[in-house]
Amino acid sequence: MGIEAKWKSRGIRVGKLPCGPLDKISDVPGVTVGHCTLADGEVQTGVTALLPHQGDIFHDKVMAASHVINGFGKTTGLVQIDELGTLETPILFTNTLSVGTVETALVKYMLDKNPDICETTGSVNPVVCECNDSGLNDIRGLHITEENVRAALADCRADFAEGAVGAGRGMRCHGLKGGIGSASRVVELDGKQYTIGALVLSNHAVFDDLVVAGTPIQSLLDAHIPPHEDKGSIITVLATDIPLSERQLRRLCHRALVGLSRTGSFCGNGSGEIVIAFTTANRVPHYSEKAILPMGMLHDDAINPLFRAVAECVEESVLSSLLHAETVTGYHGRTVRCLSDLLDEK
Amino acid sequence: MGIEAKWKSRGIRVGKLPCGPLDKISDVPGVTVGHCTLADGEVQTGVTALLPHQGDIFHDKVMAASHVINGFGKTTGLVQIDELGTLETPILFTNTLSVGTVETALVKYMLDKNPDICETTGSVNPVVCECNDSGLNDIRGLHITEENVRAALADCRADFAEGAVGAGRGMRCHGLKGGIGSASRVVELDGKQYTIGALVLSNHAVFDDLVVAGTPIQSLLDAHIPPHEDKGSIITVLATDIPLSERQLRRLCHRALVGLSRTGSFCGNGSGEIVIAFTTANRVPHYSEKAILPMGMLHDDAINPLFRAVAECVEESVLSSLLHAETVTGYHGRTVRCLSDLLDEK
Amino acid sequence: MGIEAKWKSRGIRVGKLPCGPLDKISDVPGVTVGHCTLADGEVQTGVTALLPHQGDIFHDKVMAASHVINGFGKTTGLVQIDELGTLETPILFTNTLSVGTVETALVKYMLDKNPDICETTGSVNPVVCECNDSGLNDIRGLHITEENVRAALADCRADFAEGAVGAGRGMRCHGLKGGIGSASRVVELDGKQYTIGALVLSNHAVFDDLVVAGTPIQSLLDAHIPPHEDKGSIITVLATDIPLSERQLRRLCHRALVGLSRTGSFCGNGSGEIVIAFTTANRVPHYSEKAILPMGMLHDDAINPLFRAVAECVEESVLSSLLHAETVTGYHGRTVRCLSDLLDEK
Amino acid sequence: MGIEAKWKSRGIRVGKLPCGPLDKISDVPGVTVGHCTLADGEVQTGVTALLPHQGDIFHDKVMAASHVINGFGKTTGLVQIDELGTLETPILFTNTLSVGTVETALVKYMLDKNPDICETTGSVNPVVCECNDSGLNDIRGLHITEENVRAALADCRADFAEGAVGAGRGMRCHGLKGGIGSASRVVELDGKQYTIGALVLSNHAVFDDLVVAGTPIQSLLDAHIPPHEDKGSIITVLATDIPLSERQLRRLCHRALVGLSRTGSFCGNGSGEIVIAFTTANRVPHYSEKAILPMGMLHDDAINPLFRAVAECVEESVLSSLLHAETVTGYHGRTVRCLSDLLDEK
Repeated sequence: MGIEAKWKSRGIRVGKLPCGPLDKISDVPGVTVGHCTLADGEVQTGVTALLPHQGDIFHDKVMAASHVINGFGKTTGLVQIDELGTLETPILFTNTLSVGTVETALVKYMLDKNPDICETTGSVNPVVCECNDSGLNDIRGLHITEENVRAALADCRADFAEGAVGAGRGMRCHGLKGGIGSASRVVELDGKQYTIGALVLSNHAVFDDLVVAGTPIQSLLDAHIPPHEDKGSIITVLATDIPLSERQLRRLCHRALVGLSRTGSFCGNGSGEIVIAFTTANRVPHYSEKAILPMGMLHDDAINPLFRAVAECVEESVLSSLLHAETVTGYHGRTVRCLSDLLDEK
Repeated sequence: MGIEAKWKSRGIRVGKLPCGPLDKISDVPGVTVGHCTLADGEVQTGVTALLPHQGDIFHDKVMAASHVINGFGKTTGLVQIDELGTLETPILFTNTLSVGTVETALVKYMLDKNPDICETTGSVNPVVCECNDSGLNDIRGLHITEENVRAALADCRADFAEGAVGAGRGMRCHGLKGGIGSASRVVELDGKQYTIGALVLSNHAVFDDLVVAGTPIQSLLDAHIPPHEDKGSIITVLATDIPLSERQLRRLCHRALVGLSRTGSFCGNGSGEIVIAFTTANRVPHYSEKAILPMGMLHDDAINPLFRAVAECVEESVLSSLLHAETVTGYHGRTVRCLSDLLDEK
Repeated sequence: MGIEAKWKSRGIRVGKLPCGPLDKISDVPGVTVGHCTLADGEVQTGVTALLPHQGDIFHDKVMAASHVINGFGKTTGLVQIDELGTLETPILFTNTLSVGTVETALVKYMLDKNPDICETTGSVNPVVCECNDSGLNDIRGLHITEENVRAALADCRADFAEGAVGAGRGMRCHGLKGGIGSASRVVELDGKQYTIGALVLSNHAVFDDLVVAGTPIQSLLDAHIPPHEDKGSIITVLATDIPLSERQLRRLCHRALVGLSRTGSFCGNGSGEIVIAFTTANRVPHYSEKAILPMGMLHDDAINPLFRAVAECVEESVLSSLLHAETVTGYHGRTVRCLSDLLDEK
Repeated sequence: MGIEAKWKSRGIRVGKLPCGPLDKISDVPGVTVGHCTLADGEVQTGVTALLPHQGDIFHDKVMAASHVINGFGKTTGLVQIDELGTLETPILFTNTLSVGTVETALVKYMLDKNPDICETTGSVNPVVCECNDSGLNDIRGLHITEENVRAALADCRADFAEGAVGAGRGMRCHGLKGGIGSASRVVELDGKQYTIGALVLSNHAVFDDLVVAGTPIQSLLDAHIPPHEDKGSIITVLATDIPLSERQLRRLCHRALVGLSRTGSFCGNGSGEIVIAFTTANRVPHYSEKAILPMGMLHDDAINPLFRAVAECVEESVLSSLLHAETVTGYHGRTVRCLSDLLDEK
């Protein structure tokens, strides 16, 4: 029985809004995700890449904003996103200590594609997100290579894998095997359908607090997970094709915590909880002959369905990362079990 | 059967941490709350006052911080709280259009107590919070008077009333009668017991989304509440006697949204969601002979129980505002029913 | 010799960009300013009003943003400006302790004009700015009345007075008589001319630090001003007819400090330094049939002339408040001399 | 004639407060700075390192805060500084595209010194600041190596070099050769002397705007510098031994712009203007048996001399970076002349 069937057979349904066809962030047209997974003994880590669209990202930037729910984290690129309101590179995800390597690889990738950067125009703002996979991965070994980054970028596709893959390979969420999760919701505005999607890298919170679509985990499982500290982090990326201003994208970011709370997190001290949102509907050209550009903005009175969609997408993305993950054994022989196995045992 | 008995008889229990003796914000030593309630036909409104301690607040300020979850609101005083890290007046609560009147009354109260303000020393920063009670109250009539403010201040006590009282008189929360709610939790640090308390003025969210201690409202009630827009706001005040820096108080504020999410809110567009936190353990004297003052700060590795306490206190405070409220009929003959009656009907 | 002639005869010229015809914020089409001045013995205070345009401000909001340089201040309305990106009332200025009275008067003014507020639609966000005029004014006497507010609103015009008028009546700036100052600059974008204007309420900084268009005050004057503490505040409002996003308006706000620094301020502890910026070119209707609205945004690569314009406008506005002020004697018989007299004495 | 003599012989004196003995950030006891400079044809770049104290930085963190004046920059580590209020690594400076390499080298340096990181305790937050030296340096060649980072760290000393050294090698400031500059001021509190110091990496603003200690550059020089765009950035680090809270450190950061404005900058669009401040007087141990720690905080009424000191230190640091720099020829044979040569020519 596949994960989706298990999910449905247990009646797990998150929220009230309709999903997109893939129920992933890639339901937002143009968004793709790729992974490079390292799974070899004590090395359980990887890289995940997200492309905001399939064109020339540097010269055709997407409008973006970010929000730090809890800043125990090392994500790069937020300062410029907030100042200029744009995302101009793919978003990369990896483990905490490999941010430097991934940033360098992303810089090289951008230099290769854009001979004008730092030659006839300004610099580029690489965005690299991270969680700490030191429980399952020999993170101090710094095993991520620049080649891994190129592989993740080359792997980008709409129907990408979730669970213990890519940057999610070594992550633990609510004491279970976490990693990459995604979901989408469809909302109607002015008679037209639009999509909001979320992707999370989940590595946060404790087992006893987990709530699955409203049901405390203890009612679902016989399993006992030893008490553990609330460390780790969760990164959330939100994408949409609705025209939103930077201010409105930031408002969306603020609602990610609603979804995280509904799965039982209280946003612990050690958790780097970072949210980045972008819209493919407002583009900012790198070069422009015109000083003044037309943009679209939602009337804020119409924004409530979007807020609800964000809450639902983020809640489901966390659960999806759990349900898609497999059990992984890694560093020091430690094993983190997956929710799917535990549900089967019951 | 009293409200508490109803609560317990239904097995409603929020969270895992122990409560203080009153299970109210006033379990933090020195904190008191008072109300002045106007309940006469179309006038259903009031004023609530909170004293951070029982001494001279202006000359013996408490350390404070604030956080805006969603800024569709008119609370005053946050700019200075954030710059100087202190609260130097009582916190007042009222309806949206009466903020000016209450601010003036609070200024006069402070001038009366402190002949030095604006004479031999600087000015004073009045803090006035608000929600919009225009559904049940003739808010355009501006019925709040300066005398009402003085009455609320004079009424302050540890064992204060909750529900449809004071500023909470005309408020609606999750489509039911809301208003003032409060709760507290006890945490142990360095072998000593400390308290965290919350007080909310609840006026936000929709009925269908309400979750009561993990149980969706539809499973608890036969009642049907007509669909309504998610308007209104929720103000949260957090108090503690733990020594925390302004940065740490702000970290507490961020966790209020966790509690609000657990009762089913997604933090709607029209909701002014404001959080103010203070600690009675770090005091800042208005006049000081010494330039450098000793303060206490928590090691952040010990802060998780406080975050959990905030989430639990805020969740319970919202529910407590619902359970303590009575049904109210007011402006244009509109009635908002209370949760307690609906639970009885079932 | 008029003030302008004095200015020019001394060769005082601020910056490099051309001014608008009035060299005031009202060079931005639609912006007007009015005063109500109380100047009677110990009562030296007032109210100033600024209309962002001449239409229905509540139903045809202007896009806006704010920035707190130093938050020792009590300005109201910033929370909602930042959340929703709009200004929906006139901006009022008064003394610190009269904010409540002015807010109530502004609420009544808005209720009179808009029967839908709090009846069939939501509430209104009054914006009231303040400085502390307790040196020259019997501020504890709370002499401002609601009638004064209506008078200031009724007085609004393009060619308004500067100096010791309106809210500026009792203010002291760099130890001299300060108050209301304004300036404008013209920039060209896409072959079209646009205007940026500033208005300040100046009440900050110390005499010895004053720099007049690059020249330290001591080189200009023989006068000696007794040492005094750096108390008081400065409020800055920026207006433009260039289409800017909220993010860009906030970027403009950040450059106000450049202008303040050039007149010699170091942004003292006691100074409430608040900046509000709005553009008349991006309007947000209160009611909209369409969910998605068209907006204009400047390409950020074209924003430098605007930053320069803000720095110049704010520097000149401070100096203009000094040059237009007259000597005032008020509370406790205290006198604050004006720059114009001192320049004449030399 | 040495630079200092030139400086004094021209009567250049910044501000009113006394300097420390070295007039550098290293007058704050324990602070040292080191450089690794690459100056070979088209490669004109480098690395600068700053140690906040000479002990175990990770286990004995200093209290810190940051502020983004203008976020067109890629500095890493700010998110966690702001959340936890601590600095736990040296601060590294380099060119924009080498941030990844330097981050990786800094991570390895921290792992070598601290076997507990990511093994028995959490991760580490590397702080890497940057400016874009693409005018003089073949920045796309990514010439910085991890060995360069170790060399800069090993070079740290109190009496460090300023000007076109380390990360400053390829920087241009106000159209002249910029780079590393530093200054300090002494303030007295409670009868004891304390120090505030600044270090800048200057790479911002245009020639025509330059003001040298109050005098426009055109009055000092006959030289003509061709018009150029205001690109590049300026990083400012502030250090002190005064006990300050994170909130107060952030207040200091806000005053850096005052100093930058006084040298003529208007904080251009392309400038990444980032400020980090720390105090060696409030330490946060990585491991603590006690949950509650004693800290010192300044009474905010005593903070004005510190604000003045920051403004003076930053203004002087920018000028010092110009006066200590030598003329450099680099990428594409471009030459950027130094202020010292131009002053000699006059």
